[in-house]
Amino acid sequence: MADSSEVEILCIGTELLLGNILNSNARWLSEELASLGLPHFRQTVVGDNRERLIEVVQETAQRSRLLITTGGLGPTPDDLTTEAIAAAFSVPLEERADVWSDIQEKAHSRGRLPGHETRRQALLPKGAQVLWNSTGTAPGMIWAPLPEFTVLTFPGVPSEMKAMWHGSAVPWIQASGLSKGVFVSRVLNFWGIGESTLAEHVADLLDGVNPTVAPYAGRGEVKLRITARAEAPSNAWGLVDHTEQELRQRTGNLCFGVDQDSLASAVLKQLAAAGQTLSVAESCTGGGLGAELTAVPGASSVMVGGVIAYANSIKRDLLSVPESFLEEYGAVSAPVAEAMASGVRRLTGSDWALAVTGIAGPDGGTQEKPVGLVYVAVAGPDGCSSEMLRLGHSRGREWIRVVSAGEVLNNLRLRLMGTQPG
Amino acid sequence: MADSSEVEILCIGTELLLGNILNSNARWLSEELASLGLPHFRQTVVGDNRERLIEVVQETAQRSRLLITTGGLGPTPDDLTTEAIAAAFSVPLEERADVWSDIQEKAHSRGRLPGHETRRQALLPKGAQVLWNSTGTAPGMIWAPLPEFTVLTFPGVPSEMKAMWHGSAVPWIQASGLSKGVFVSRVLNFWGIGESTLAEHVADLLDGVNPTVAPYAGRGEVKLRITARAEAPSNAWGLVDHTEQELRQRTGNLCFGVDQDSLASAVLKQLAAAGQTLSVAESCTGGGLGAELTAVPGASSVMVGGVIAYANSIKRDLLSVPESFLEEYGAVSAPVAEAMASGVRRLTGSDWALAVTGIAGPDGGTQEKPVGLVYVAVAGPDGCSSEMLRLGHSRGREWIRVVSAGEVLNNLRLRLMGTQPG
Repeated sequence: MADSSEVEILCIGTELLLGNILNSNARWLSEELASLGLPHFRQTVVGDNRERLIEVVQETAQRSRLLITTGGLGPTPDDLTTEAIAAAFSVPLEERADVWSDIQEKAHSRGRLPGHETRRQALLPKGAQVLWNSTGTAPGMIWAPLPEFTVLTFPGVPSEMKAMWHGSAVPWIQASGLSKGVFVSRVLNFWGIGESTLAEHVADLLDGVNPTVAPYAGRGEVKLRITARAEAPSNAWGLVDHTEQELRQRTGNLCFGVDQDSLASAVLKQLAAAGQTLSVAESCTGGGLGAELTAVPGASSVMVGGVIAYANSIKRDLLSVPESFLEEYGAVSAPVAEAMASGVRRLTGSDWALAVTGIAGPDGGTQEKPVGLVYVAVAGPDGCSSEMLRLGHSRGREWIRVVSAGEVLNNLRLRLMGTQPG
Repeated sequence: MADSSEVEILCIGTELLLGNILNSNARWLSEELASLGLPHFRQTVVGDNRERLIEVVQETAQRSRLLITTGGLGPTPDDLTTEAIAAAFSVPLEERADVWSDIQEKAHSRGRLPGHETRRQALLPKGAQVLWNSTGTAPGMIWAPLPEFTVLTFPGVPSEMKAMWHGSAVPWIQASGLSKGVFVSRVLNFWGIGESTLAEHVADLLDGVNPTVAPYAGRGEVKLRITARAEAPSNAWGLVDHTEQELRQRTGNLCFGVDQDSLASAVLKQLAAAGQTLSVAESCTGGGLGAELTAVPGASSVMVGGVIAYANSIKRDLLSVPESFLEEYGAVSAPVAEAMASGVRRLTGSDWALAVTGIAGPDGGTQEKPVGLVYVAVAGPDGCSSEMLRLGHSRGREWIRVVSAGEVLNNLRLRLMGTQPG
């Protein structure tokens, strides 16, 4: 197994330092490295600045064996990665005829002439191997400027980086001998329990060394990450499975899934297995609940659709919420939430229906009905239930919307399991 | 003005290195630092590992004047930040009576006894000043272990970090004299043009030094970031304004807004100014278009709601899309998109209506109607228009959904400006 401190990620781009974009490339590469049994222990971000790039590359070469970079490979003057890496080792750049041909070909296939500036992308340090870019024009490289130090460069455009990673980098890493052991990780996803309470329930396991168990909080969700190391995948997964079983026994139905499972995908799976359908009626979430459900590929076998009932007129006219409920209890109330759920269930003919109505803020709150007050309802073959949520205003509009959607999905999940929510 | 290389961000957490979460804290802090005229030039991420933390802190102390850390301040054994920073300078920890009182008080106010492990959070290096945490129990610190080097620590929980930043760190930074000049930035947001085409239109401006102009691509959007430095804010903004004017003149109505403006917020603003209302009918976006619109605070003055018409039965029964259209043209067709838009407009009584129907994949595509084929429609007082999009399958389901929603919003934006969409 490669020594733990031997792999690093370097993301290059002034837009990252200015906070204009999230560093989603670093996250994606981190997951990929972990799954290859190649843990990394440091990530660095620098801007499009030649001197600082050279400095970081030289530092990294002293303490690591593999550096993976993203960004700065394009044709514009602020794309400095290749040039700076070459300069860090005082190696000249040379134009690669095959890369320049590839750039010209790609331009022609789009009915364009290759711009003069794109020719810069054909320059690579002497001795570097081309990491071909099948979708874009900027190639990367695999280059070992020192006997014990290799750099892999990728463009910052996520789709290009991902295609090159899978197409060329993974085979190279697997053949490199850097990744001998495996390091596997599974995340258990929980809803309806706080991070510290969950941590108390499993405190003894948090002290484990292999596997390790670590809690962290998402938006309404809490996660426990189980990570194991072993010589072979089956042994590592065996360790993870054993700890997962223990965690599930202690936490009952609070765990709704693993890894990329969402509450939406969990509920869709339950309904698909039962051959049942679902619809939604959304006020404060405004379509967000439907979007979460339909983000899951294959949702159409379960999810029929629904109504975004943002205005009260829609609640009344489309969902048949009685005017008297709106007047007497207000739009944000248990009777209205239940009437919305029943209404959309009737309207669409679905087996189950979810409804959300609340005050997402920042305005619209009152003393009696503050920002963060939300009612969610589930209507099904066995009747209608609802729950009041007090989510507060401090975490903001988006948080209230996401947690409300999660809570109503969790209520349905528990009802489908035969458990009463709340 | 502080020397450019004097501020760094260090984010601590194994979950970041495993790719379990996005580093949204780094992005948020980056934006805040830029707005304070305190640019930073390096970000580092390390895991919950004492030795590596000490190493990074010692390196940073040699090249920087201010280090801002997030994460690792909690009560669990893997929270090592404070201890490691103290160890980096061989300074002992001491318990702060006022911090321990605060932790106990917070536990009592929640009707709980403070756990033994929470007491660790009252330990700070000798000489450090407490950075109070008003919402959580983990305090941060402001500590100058060396005459020319200060560390500010924050918890990893974003809401706590943000509250502490605004409450205590910003006043400290402003009083510190680190931030003398200003460094301001505005982002112009474009729709309907590719990054490289836009870059060609403004190539000469990309070579500027102050302001700098840099292009980058989002999901369907392209952005140009204008950044200027000056002694006083008014001078810096003057430079930005001048360049913005030039860019807008060259790009016409391709620019839909600045900074956090979204296509949704731009359209809502136009409609609010005209006193008009909007509804949506969504198939492949499944609520995502409604969610984008209602993510904008105050959307309720314009957005009345709509129908998530995922199943064909909903398109027919709720939106009155003729059965013959569905049979003859298929659900993914211009006639159906237009009938959906007209249908939801009639149903809700809104002035304008948007519709989206398409194949988001990964399954469901055919030779004739591949994944990525989407029709969007806009219905309004002056009739109905539609557009066919071919978005391809390679960028995935979520990208298709987001770009489809953007495209239909942009079509409405252009129609409201009296321009026919292209």
